[in-house]
Amino acid sequence: MPYSEETASYKFNHTMLRIKDPKISLPFYTDIIGMDFIDKLEFSDFTLYFLAFDRSGGKATDAEKKADRHNREGILELTHNHGTEKLGATPYHSGNADPQGFGHIAITVANVEEACARFGRLGVPFKKRLTDGRMRNIAFILDPDGYWIEVLQDTTASK
Amino acid sequence: MPYSEETASYKFNHTMLRIKDPKISLPFYTDIIGMDFIDKLEFSDFTLYFLAFDRSGGKATDAEKKADRHNREGILELTHNHGTEKLGATPYHSGNADPQGFGHIAITVANVEEACARFGRLGVPFKKRLTDGRMRNIAFILDPDGYWIEVLQDTTASK
Repeated sequence: MPYSEETASYKFNHTMLRIKDPKISLPFYTDIIGMDFIDKLEFSDFTLYFLAFDRSGGKATDAEKKADRHNREGILELTHNHGTEKLGATPYHSGNADPQGFGHIAITVANVEEACARFGRLGVPFKKRLTDGRMRNIAFILDPDGYWIEVLQDTTASK
Repeated sequence: MPYSEETASYKFNHTMLRIKDPKISLPFYTDIIGMDFIDKLEFSDFTLYFLAFDRSGGKATDAEKKADRHNREGILELTHNHGTEKLGATPYHSGNADPQGFGHIAITVANVEEACARFGRLGVPFKKRLTDGRMRNIAFILDPDGYWIEVLQDTTASK
């Protein structure tokens, strides 16, 4: 589309997924996926958690990351409806069985083989390993609620 | 999370949604939402469309936008399974009725009142207008398949 002043300020700020248990999903998205926790909004019956990858090379403070929440892309919003953490299995649907809709979120990485080896060491379940199927530079891992996360090679990065 | 070399290259590259008809969804996401079409991958029974907001102030060429596809955040991937465009209604599920899961994508804008007035002029259906409910700085519009798109004020922008 030609550059337009009308939409010049627009950013694809975030994607929201519902999660069963923040005590499981937050460590997954921070320690394993590598995102920073940047903000939390608490309401009477639900809590919203905002996560994003650091873009400052480790220089930004927590306050700067929080202040930047509206002014960037690539934020993941996780919604916890209070009480779901007590359920046995997740009540949530990945979108990839019927009824389909949402498919996945995706992370690009500088070295997809190293990233997948690390996910394997950390015990992350795979939906598709690099060696499965025809597409050998793409894997899919599963988050704690069963959402698919594509892991793909950043073709602009040097391995 | 403390800065880690292991995940320093990771980016939240894209979110994938299935769409019924690219002839309807592509004009929606480009002309109305304001994203650029940046790439397309065609397979025998499906086609992937990649869109993203321009971050160059209109300076980047189409080739530069395409080359940057793996090395940025905020990409929307739309999957068209060939043939769904012939269906009467979308076969896809927004994630907000049962079974729930995915909730929405969100765009931040420099002036949420102006943005919502423009969406109204362009005939976009609203799930929640700014004046509905208690949260007066957030609206939800619906994409052609019924996915929810949150429109929220970028609190760092001057109106």
